[in-house]
Amino acid sequence: MGALHEGHLALVREAKRRASFVVVTIFVNPTQFGPSEDLAHYPRDLASDLVKASAAGASAVFAPDASEMYLDGDETRVRVGALAVPLCGQYRPGHFEGVATILAKLFVLGGDAVALFGRKDYQQLAVVRRMVTDLFLPVEVVGHPIVRESDGLAMSSRNAYLSPEERSRARALPSGLEAAHRLFADGERDADILRSAARAELEKVAASIDYVEVADPSRLAPYGHGRVGARALLAMAARVGTTRLIDNMVLGEEPPPSGVASGGRRGEEPSGRDRAS
Amino acid sequence: MGALHEGHLALVREAKRRASFVVVTIFVNPTQFGPSEDLAHYPRDLASDLVKASAAGASAVFAPDASEMYLDGDETRVRVGALAVPLCGQYRPGHFEGVATILAKLFVLGGDAVALFGRKDYQQLAVVRRMVTDLFLPVEVVGHPIVRESDGLAMSSRNAYLSPEERSRARALPSGLEAAHRLFADGERDADILRSAARAELEKVAASIDYVEVADPSRLAPYGHGRVGARALLAMAARVGTTRLIDNMVLGEEPPPSGVASGGRRGEEPSGRDRAS
Repeated sequence: MGALHEGHLALVREAKRRASFVVVTIFVNPTQFGPSEDLAHYPRDLASDLVKASAAGASAVFAPDASEMYLDGDETRVRVGALAVPLCGQYRPGHFEGVATILAKLFVLGGDAVALFGRKDYQQLAVVRRMVTDLFLPVEVVGHPIVRESDGLAMSSRNAYLSPEERSRARALPSGLEAAHRLFADGERDADILRSAARAELEKVAASIDYVEVADPSRLAPYGHGRVGARALLAMAARVGTTRLIDNMVLGEEPPPSGVASGGRRGEEPSGRDRAS
Repeated sequence: MGALHEGHLALVREAKRRASFVVVTIFVNPTQFGPSEDLAHYPRDLASDLVKASAAGASAVFAPDASEMYLDGDETRVRVGALAVPLCGQYRPGHFEGVATILAKLFVLGGDAVALFGRKDYQQLAVVRRMVTDLFLPVEVVGHPIVRESDGLAMSSRNAYLSPEERSRARALPSGLEAAHRLFADGERDADILRSAARAELEKVAASIDYVEVADPSRLAPYGHGRVGARALLAMAARVGTTRLIDNMVLGEEPPPSGVASGGRRGEEPSGRDRAS
């Protein structure tokens, strides 16, 4: 959606390693925004994006108008079922239908391709993988590790909305992941305890929590009150001030956001296709 | 969906005139059948279909299993909005979503193509055109005139369900089209009068009517109680015995089913792309 940051540019550089021709799509997709969401004032800076994309290795930027992607009379939508229901699906009705629809269009236009997505939008990545599989689209979907600021905050175009005070409080999201990671690393497998540890960090800074959930990493089904598996997705969405932020990690698979407990794997390039599929 | 009849074979022959490589897809698509519909006993005769398709000029027949078109865990669906709502959409919830989904899959697999559809399933044709346009699929959709039995009954695999007595009563569907056509040809433009004339023919044989509707041929919106335009879709669905039959014609554009009032254009090949888009 543009307003490119280092997380996006890491995707461009990884794409360049995988393919000779790299297209960056920049499109603030209206169908994935709810009526009360931030479509109108979503950060946009195409001139700056073109410079950044080019410097990172993009061969082309595809930045269509909404009227080019949604033709006059457009009324076709693509939806993915169960994967779009939990987590953000509960709080953003229609969001993943908008995402699946625009990506189906882009994939049809793009033809055979490798497509890179950041793992910050973990549920989006799962939805896209499912859609590509189900519709037989000739696309290899690759997830890229989350790129973070030095204090662990996941990079996001929406971080630009944060005041300095909010920016400081936003650190609670990766802190929540770290708290749960420490417990998990010590052998804790109770879903309630892992969730509560992450939630407590958000509550410390009075973030308005949409959800903090522990879920199956493949099916995204929340674990409820039982024990989690050897890998467990910890995912959260919360508002700091009016800015909605999301973050996640796969416990048992990934290093924590600040890399403290992992021996510094943060920032390492993925060794191949990621394992989220 | 197989159980090939002359209507299907006319599509194969027309395809052969338009392309060097013609694929016939034969797939009784489970997602387009409602829970109380005839999926289980829909007519199937693949051995006979292969012989007929080959004789009509097919280069290949694609007849996958349901598990090949709907992979394990499949949950992606394609839906078209307003065009799928009226007419059969009112009586077959989910039907056009199943149609759009399977055709999106087939079109992605098929790549650049011309795709032929019979105009008997007029609403299906409109839905497919819209989906192809909206998703930028590289497919030219061509509608083919309805192929009819000598007494005017539209050919359909479901005609095989009819007893001899029901087969005779089923003639009421094209009779209804003819009645409305005669009025239209004499200048009648009142939607209620046109609808009633067609409906009366169905009532004569005690058919159980789902709908008889006069609608805009492009948007499929029913005309209600007003005056129709220079072209008007007359569409109907009715049960004769337990067999659901559909039929339609575009008043002001097409000859009536038996060709009586038109100087015998019935059976004529289309002169180019049809005008239903």
